[in-house]
Amino acid sequence: MRIAVDAMGGDHAPDEIIKGAVEAQGLLDKDDELILIGLEDVIRSQLADLDAEEDKITIVHAPDVIGMEESPVESLRKKRKSSIAVMAKLAARGQTDAVISAGNTGACVAACQIRMRNLAGVNRPAIAAVLPTLPGPVIICDAGANVACRPINLYQNAVMSSVYSQRILEIDRPRVGLMNIGGESAKGNELVKKTRELLLADEELNFIGNLEGHDIFDGVCDVAICEGFLGNVVLKLTEGLVDMMFKAIKLELLETDKKLAMQFKPLMEQIYKKYDYHEYGGALLLGVNGTAVICHGASIDRTIKNAIMASKKFYTMKINDQIVEHLSNVSVDANEE
Amino acid sequence: MRIAVDAMGGDHAPDEIIKGAVEAQGLLDKDDELILIGLEDVIRSQLADLDAEEDKITIVHAPDVIGMEESPVESLRKKRKSSIAVMAKLAARGQTDAVISAGNTGACVAACQIRMRNLAGVNRPAIAAVLPTLPGPVIICDAGANVACRPINLYQNAVMSSVYSQRILEIDRPRVGLMNIGGESAKGNELVKKTRELLLADEELNFIGNLEGHDIFDGVCDVAICEGFLGNVVLKLTEGLVDMMFKAIKLELLETDKKLAMQFKPLMEQIYKKYDYHEYGGALLLGVNGTAVICHGASIDRTIKNAIMASKKFYTMKINDQIVEHLSNVSVDANEE
Repeated sequence: MRIAVDAMGGDHAPDEIIKGAVEAQGLLDKDDELILIGLEDVIRSQLADLDAEEDKITIVHAPDVIGMEESPVESLRKKRKSSIAVMAKLAARGQTDAVISAGNTGACVAACQIRMRNLAGVNRPAIAAVLPTLPGPVIICDAGANVACRPINLYQNAVMSSVYSQRILEIDRPRVGLMNIGGESAKGNELVKKTRELLLADEELNFIGNLEGHDIFDGVCDVAICEGFLGNVVLKLTEGLVDMMFKAIKLELLETDKKLAMQFKPLMEQIYKKYDYHEYGGALLLGVNGTAVICHGASIDRTIKNAIMASKKFYTMKINDQIVEHLSNVSVDANEE
Repeated sequence: MRIAVDAMGGDHAPDEIIKGAVEAQGLLDKDDELILIGLEDVIRSQLADLDAEEDKITIVHAPDVIGMEESPVESLRKKRKSSIAVMAKLAARGQTDAVISAGNTGACVAACQIRMRNLAGVNRPAIAAVLPTLPGPVIICDAGANVACRPINLYQNAVMSSVYSQRILEIDRPRVGLMNIGGESAKGNELVKKTRELLLADEELNFIGNLEGHDIFDGVCDVAICEGFLGNVVLKLTEGLVDMMFKAIKLELLETDKKLAMQFKPLMEQIYKKYDYHEYGGALLLGVNGTAVICHGASIDRTIKNAIMASKKFYTMKINDQIVEHLSNVSVDANEE
């Protein structure tokens, strides 16, 4: 299997990205091939520092880099030789089996959407992010690829995430819930009301009904379906709130009892570790004809290593074939509103 | 001032509601009047138990109660003599200056929307919920009254919340942000792009631009504007996540160090107190021609007491007049899409 990694994308690029790729080398099969995309000199000197098996790594030079804050569409148009653009091109030409980037999420999603075709039966790709919760991991889909969702998009997101949850996270009959503002069927806006009908019509799905905000953390669902705008806010809100709470606890501890604060520190680190998104490597961009992993901008070596291993699992287990099969079995009209 | 409280609404009704009303009595002015709505016998016997000044409390009998899980529209149609319906009717007839309920939120919002007219210049009412964060309170508006928002609704929500933040929370020039999925102006869906233009056009507003999910807790804004579906998810998600984190910390503590867990308990309680939504009493339903406070279903006596005091402040400070004035000063066409 060939796995292409955008070496220039992310807050800690290229150092942590290349380090993560080298760490993954030891876990991959002998005939697997890593492709690093970016400034050749920089990558080569970093690989030399890391004592990597350089003969097993292909470097594809990309002279441009898209910054984390640049406008996705505009930057892709202007920087045709950016690492993200080159990465998507490799996938489009069949020169890699998977692509991974921790760079500008918007640009990465747009490049994959434009270059890689959609999977058969899928109208729009969606980001499936795994949220670690106390009762277990919950997939949020869509986490931000599509901000103008129609019911058919949300339905397809449910099918894609359900297959992903079942096969990759090994959850037997993933419970799929629809993000809403209340439990009753009449609740919500037009989008969720129509989506609900499509979800109910597919008997292969284990659709459990509406979810309210707090349900995500209550262990009632394995997959939470929502449109991309909402999913994006949910993910970033969760991250911000967790940070704020740890900060609040720390402040309170330091104010009242410094000794207790010292005792509490290792415990906090343990909790952080348990609910650590770095473990999942990144979010799959489901619905493209290939394997694409979107990593967090703050990715470190471990995140990238895990993203590489996740892409291998996704590719090897032929998740896309199973999504196509499910969608072709069910008579939901993809042209429906 | 006359303040009507739905004695039957909420998970802990009627006991905690009536207790809260009696506690507020001591803080109100001499000529203020409390009206309790619900089952007369029940209210009367509870008041006797509490040694309340019964002559200063008017009881309005309402034989029906709308359950917390009932369908709002249907229950209002069927239960015309429910405490919520009777409460809204009192407001519509000018027989009370404020209404307060911890009951079925949907039914309460619908009843107020139907019975009380809209404020001049406001197309749709919105819920303004105050979220306690480490850097200070942040208003989320709309928190769930309107799930089919147009840009003009979001613009009006910004004006209403800004006045509320400035006067009630005493924030000098409230920083108003628009919930979005990224910082750049081109980000987001059609709703937020058009809303952004309206917000920029109003120079009286201190509009700071787009907010991402984590910004709510970062101290960059005082008001976060979003449509009701999103705001509802944001609020419930926040509550669920805070609960989960405290649970996770407790579990980790008990697993590793029971003695440390005991030491940590009072600290947790202190943190809980600092970020306690009960302090704010409830969320104002802004945009109705009157004063309406929607309380959390889990309201206790303190929540209701604070809600009563909040309604008095809102009414006495003539917040509605200031909202009407701001909206009439600005040439944003309310019929605009």
